[in-house]
Amino acid sequence: MRLDFAGERVMAVVAHPDDAELLCAGTLARARSEGAAVAVCVMCRGEKGQPARPIRNLGAVRRREMRAAAAVLGAELFTGRWGDGELMDADAPRVFLADVLRRFRPTLLLAHAPNDYHPDHRAVAAIADTATWFSASRGRITRWPALPAPPAIWHMDTIELHGFEPGFYVDVSAWMPVKERMLACHRSQLSRAGDSEFSPLLPLMRAQAGMRGMQAGVAAAEAFRIHATFKRCRGW
Amino acid sequence: MRLDFAGERVMAVVAHPDDAELLCAGTLARARSEGAAVAVCVMCRGEKGQPARPIRNLGAVRRREMRAAAAVLGAELFTGRWGDGELMDADAPRVFLADVLRRFRPTLLLAHAPNDYHPDHRAVAAIADTATWFSASRGRITRWPALPAPPAIWHMDTIELHGFEPGFYVDVSAWMPVKERMLACHRSQLSRAGDSEFSPLLPLMRAQAGMRGMQAGVAAAEAFRIHATFKRCRGW
Amino acid sequence: MRLDFAGERVMAVVAHPDDAELLCAGTLARARSEGAAVAVCVMCRGEKGQPARPIRNLGAVRRREMRAAAAVLGAELFTGRWGDGELMDADAPRVFLADVLRRFRPTLLLAHAPNDYHPDHRAVAAIADTATWFSASRGRITRWPALPAPPAIWHMDTIELHGFEPGFYVDVSAWMPVKERMLACHRSQLSRAGDSEFSPLLPLMRAQAGMRGMQAGVAAAEAFRIHATFKRCRGW
Amino acid sequence: MRLDFAGERVMAVVAHPDDAELLCAGTLARARSEGAAVAVCVMCRGEKGQPARPIRNLGAVRRREMRAAAAVLGAELFTGRWGDGELMDADAPRVFLADVLRRFRPTLLLAHAPNDYHPDHRAVAAIADTATWFSASRGRITRWPALPAPPAIWHMDTIELHGFEPGFYVDVSAWMPVKERMLACHRSQLSRAGDSEFSPLLPLMRAQAGMRGMQAGVAAAEAFRIHATFKRCRGW
Amino acid sequence: MRLDFAGERVMAVVAHPDDAELLCAGTLARARSEGAAVAVCVMCRGEKGQPARPIRNLGAVRRREMRAAAAVLGAELFTGRWGDGELMDADAPRVFLADVLRRFRPTLLLAHAPNDYHPDHRAVAAIADTATWFSASRGRITRWPALPAPPAIWHMDTIELHGFEPGFYVDVSAWMPVKERMLACHRSQLSRAGDSEFSPLLPLMRAQAGMRGMQAGVAAAEAFRIHATFKRCRGW
Amino acid sequence: MRLDFAGERVMAVVAHPDDAELLCAGTLARARSEGAAVAVCVMCRGEKGQPARPIRNLGAVRRREMRAAAAVLGAELFTGRWGDGELMDADAPRVFLADVLRRFRPTLLLAHAPNDYHPDHRAVAAIADTATWFSASRGRITRWPALPAPPAIWHMDTIELHGFEPGFYVDVSAWMPVKERMLACHRSQLSRAGDSEFSPLLPLMRAQAGMRGMQAGVAAAEAFRIHATFKRCRGW
Repeated sequence: MRLDFAGERVMAVVAHPDDAELLCAGTLARARSEGAAVAVCVMCRGEKGQPARPIRNLGAVRRREMRAAAAVLGAELFTGRWGDGELMDADAPRVFLADVLRRFRPTLLLAHAPNDYHPDHRAVAAIADTATWFSASRGRITRWPALPAPPAIWHMDTIELHGFEPGFYVDVSAWMPVKERMLACHRSQLSRAGDSEFSPLLPLMRAQAGMRGMQAGVAAAEAFRIHATFKRCRGW
Repeated sequence: MRLDFAGERVMAVVAHPDDAELLCAGTLARARSEGAAVAVCVMCRGEKGQPARPIRNLGAVRRREMRAAAAVLGAELFTGRWGDGELMDADAPRVFLADVLRRFRPTLLLAHAPNDYHPDHRAVAAIADTATWFSASRGRITRWPALPAPPAIWHMDTIELHGFEPGFYVDVSAWMPVKERMLACHRSQLSRAGDSEFSPLLPLMRAQAGMRGMQAGVAAAEAFRIHATFKRCRGW
Repeated sequence: MRLDFAGERVMAVVAHPDDAELLCAGTLARARSEGAAVAVCVMCRGEKGQPARPIRNLGAVRRREMRAAAAVLGAELFTGRWGDGELMDADAPRVFLADVLRRFRPTLLLAHAPNDYHPDHRAVAAIADTATWFSASRGRITRWPALPAPPAIWHMDTIELHGFEPGFYVDVSAWMPVKERMLACHRSQLSRAGDSEFSPLLPLMRAQAGMRGMQAGVAAAEAFRIHATFKRCRGW
Repeated sequence: MRLDFAGERVMAVVAHPDDAELLCAGTLARARSEGAAVAVCVMCRGEKGQPARPIRNLGAVRRREMRAAAAVLGAELFTGRWGDGELMDADAPRVFLADVLRRFRPTLLLAHAPNDYHPDHRAVAAIADTATWFSASRGRITRWPALPAPPAIWHMDTIELHGFEPGFYVDVSAWMPVKERMLACHRSQLSRAGDSEFSPLLPLMRAQAGMRGMQAGVAAAEAFRIHATFKRCRGW
Repeated sequence: MRLDFAGERVMAVVAHPDDAELLCAGTLARARSEGAAVAVCVMCRGEKGQPARPIRNLGAVRRREMRAAAAVLGAELFTGRWGDGELMDADAPRVFLADVLRRFRPTLLLAHAPNDYHPDHRAVAAIADTATWFSASRGRITRWPALPAPPAIWHMDTIELHGFEPGFYVDVSAWMPVKERMLACHRSQLSRAGDSEFSPLLPLMRAQAGMRGMQAGVAAAEAFRIHATFKRCRGW
Repeated sequence: MRLDFAGERVMAVVAHPDDAELLCAGTLARARSEGAAVAVCVMCRGEKGQPARPIRNLGAVRRREMRAAAAVLGAELFTGRWGDGELMDADAPRVFLADVLRRFRPTLLLAHAPNDYHPDHRAVAAIADTATWFSASRGRITRWPALPAPPAIWHMDTIELHGFEPGFYVDVSAWMPVKERMLACHRSQLSRAGDSEFSPLLPLMRAQAGMRGMQAGVAAAEAFRIHATFKRCRGW
């Protein structure tokens, strides 16, 4: 069985600059190689992800890092300006994301799972749910025209697989090198490998993609669930 | 088996002017015919439900429509003034609804399911949970006296049955004509039948009530779940 | 809100002679007082429920006890002959129960929850599911005519509330005396109060009905869930 | 998004002669049109599906009907000889199905959901789980060589959508005519349209595929879930 | 089996002054007796818990009551200043609690369940999730140094056991007297025993600990679940 | 937090000779080192786990292997004689296991999860549930006296973590060497490393214990859930 992304427009909306790398970059890379247009929307600046030896202007550094990663992927990049830990399901980010959706016009939106570990991730799940609805609401007038219909939503895996039952697995074995090259762009975060407050990113990414791959009978996989709600599901 | 609504005071709290019609109007109509007092509280103005050919003063138009529908039902109507897509679980709507509860004094509150498709629906679920508690809290002093106990809460079905496991089914077969007459009052929305952003209301309502009816062995049904939480459950 | 059992025919199918007393006798008593016909079908003989000082012919003793309890309730009694711990979801008990259903012709069957603590309870859940289907299958020819439709199924609470989320609560406050008088008929089991292998029955029954009552805002309640499956649900 | 069945070998294992039509025939027809080999394995004879005016030799009649339906689909047909309501998760049907799997060598097995309404359906779910494991076990020696790996399993929707949360939807809009032509082969069952014991098949099929289609934004869909267990999942 | 709290630092974060007594005081008392340091953080003032005969300066009264109860327990006490029913998952309480965590440096945080009955309880669940993450984030600079790792989180039982499946039970039989002495400090609330809006506290506490004890084979127990999320779980 | 196994009697009941190694041997080894008595009961012979080059008398070979592994662990070993794939929840294995329980007299029984991948594993879950009840039933007379109370049950993780939400994690970091030495005894199975039908055992064990360890903040962990049912839970 194969999922075919040809002709789709796939956007991932994530909280922090390196979340897409951990949870869905393989799927995006594969979608692109199959002919889809891809984009990443990062809501927060990542300015609190400080290594032991703090980096000045970390927000600016991380913006460069995410641009580099998006270039590796060949993805359009949208960036919000919320501070780390300050993203809430509120009007401003809803409207921001709805407008990003009206600009990129995705057919599929990958969003954090509602029960992921970080408040910004959980906020993204809620904002994505709302913004997809807003994006196609004609009564909501902005600079961009309303979409004919909201994009479908898939929820991404949680960090370390906590409390996430996969609805299906996307085989990303052949795209692990892209995923790793993208992650390598986030040098500020890779330097945190010895910190006790997070987990070293590369082993974490490999362990997660490897375990999902084992479960799915392939070398590496990313896990998703459809978001079961009105107008955000599709027949495949 | 029959649920008997005699002597109850049943209120539905919904997000938008036509939500009650889709999800619980049959139950309200039946409750009334069995001797219950019924009410509908609509939190949002519905001003963004624009058809392809926009309607001026849509908010005012929809207010007239919901008044007409409430008259068909014989229900008291309470209306909030929140904009579509702007309802949040916050102090103002909590207090507003708690006061509505103190005025109507329901024994049963029908509220949206916490996982329904629209942010305003999800907000109603949260606000209803809170406001029922506030309504009976003596330390919370307003113009109306505290209720002796919070009303019970039932969660209504989700639009298109997504992710909703019915706890029980109310047979509304004999009240489908009322439900349809109420829906017919929402002319501004029926004119959106050809829009891609929502679904034509009448077929949607019939498909949903018909499928719930099939599941329950009757012509038409509405599905609910009790809200399993302290002081909001009742023995029947 | 009130559930009205008038005109129904309610049967409970349980594993052992005193299970109905613990889990649904209040509902049966109330149904009868509201005009329903009621019945109890006990699948096993109860011959292994030995007190510390063993009783001779325990099976016969328990049969007398359950007859006395059924008389208190005013219920028709059907008894299987399976040994305790020997009931399996197999052809013989399926056919036995299907025929009991064809004889009593219930509109509602109360059955153990599929995850209750005892293998015989779990077997009853499976057998009830199957036998209700068989009871209305015209191609299945026995001495009794097929029912026009299977009865609805409600699953009863588990012993000590483990892993059971109530779908709704039946107020049995006024029928606790009947429930207690029925339990008092099971003298062989009440004599086991000091055994470590079970729990003293009367305190167990009161604690369970009392806790379900607290949750439902009444003095005593019994908890149930509908069995969500084709033809075994009803609109109320 | 599109699921691509090219190169797959898809088998459905169902309890009764017309179950595939109701729950997965659209997917099989589509898979075949995309280049997959397809098969249906029917475990029971269907001999108890008697209309009001009983049919002689109903088992033989139904065998002809399922052959005709399989011919419409272009599927290989395997048939068990179990009586209706007599299928259990036991050694004989496990071995039978394991051998069918070794003969057809599917890459994907569609099987009933473990909580579907009929004991034979639930038995199929359990047998499929076991037989897929057996099919690839080299220590289990039969006339056919072991498969290199078990097929993946997808669970099919339940009849009338009870208690089934779709993991994903297959768009079968273009294959509804095949599905309906297949169903039309089951004349013995279509004659049961007026019976109270089942539901008229054609409206049931249309209502179910139509509601799943509504949920998925297409004219008609069939819903499935992956079976989350060792070696029976795949990366797509 | 025994859980050993020696060497731990256990903090409970609750919404109102008497919540710890109801849901986790036995565990705290036991942890302390086994050599753990314990603390309680109460987020709200409790100023709306008015008995029928209102108390002046109820907030101040309740502060004295909670201090007395903390003294009985031998716990450090931290108090927020939010009004009852005004606690939201927002920046201020997140930062407040993160700083409390940095001061007490717990290894384990007991927090309300996300589905408990009161909006302030649900807010505590969300705030605790966030604040534990913040507490160990080095990029988040406050007067106290970041923790080396977030504490583990356990969710406490809900009031009256609604919708809470215990992950495990802590035997508090020997600490019921402490729990009761602590509760006795909350005289302002005990005087509400006859109010219809809450439940008399002492019987409620005993019924809940007694039922959890029955389920766990001990005289009294408190039930918890681990919070399954990144960095907030521990191997025991 | 630490679970203390001192004074316990812990038995694991598994389907096949090497299942304990994969899923619970670390916990057993740790329990023993803390002063618990430990035992393993293997229900099936393992005679179908044939490597590519078949082994004669594989059943006898595997018996030697499990004896060696039990010796490494210092565990008492009980062995059933069921063929692989032939274990059913039926009277004989229920009685067999109940008697094993009466002989070893465990306070805690580790059993496969009810949804694990292999029919024999699922059978063990059901048999364990029943046999623990039988073991303490005085009316069930065998050569060994009834236990005073059934042991508690913990369900073990599933192979590859499919569909298993940990209730808690046991830190087995220090016992991985024992676990590996035990696995090394199963030479017949290690020789299957290149087979497509299973997964190489050592990497599988390491990946699983490593991922559970990551989730729990330790080097290696084993995951369990309590079995929430009458008399099989304990307060810790």
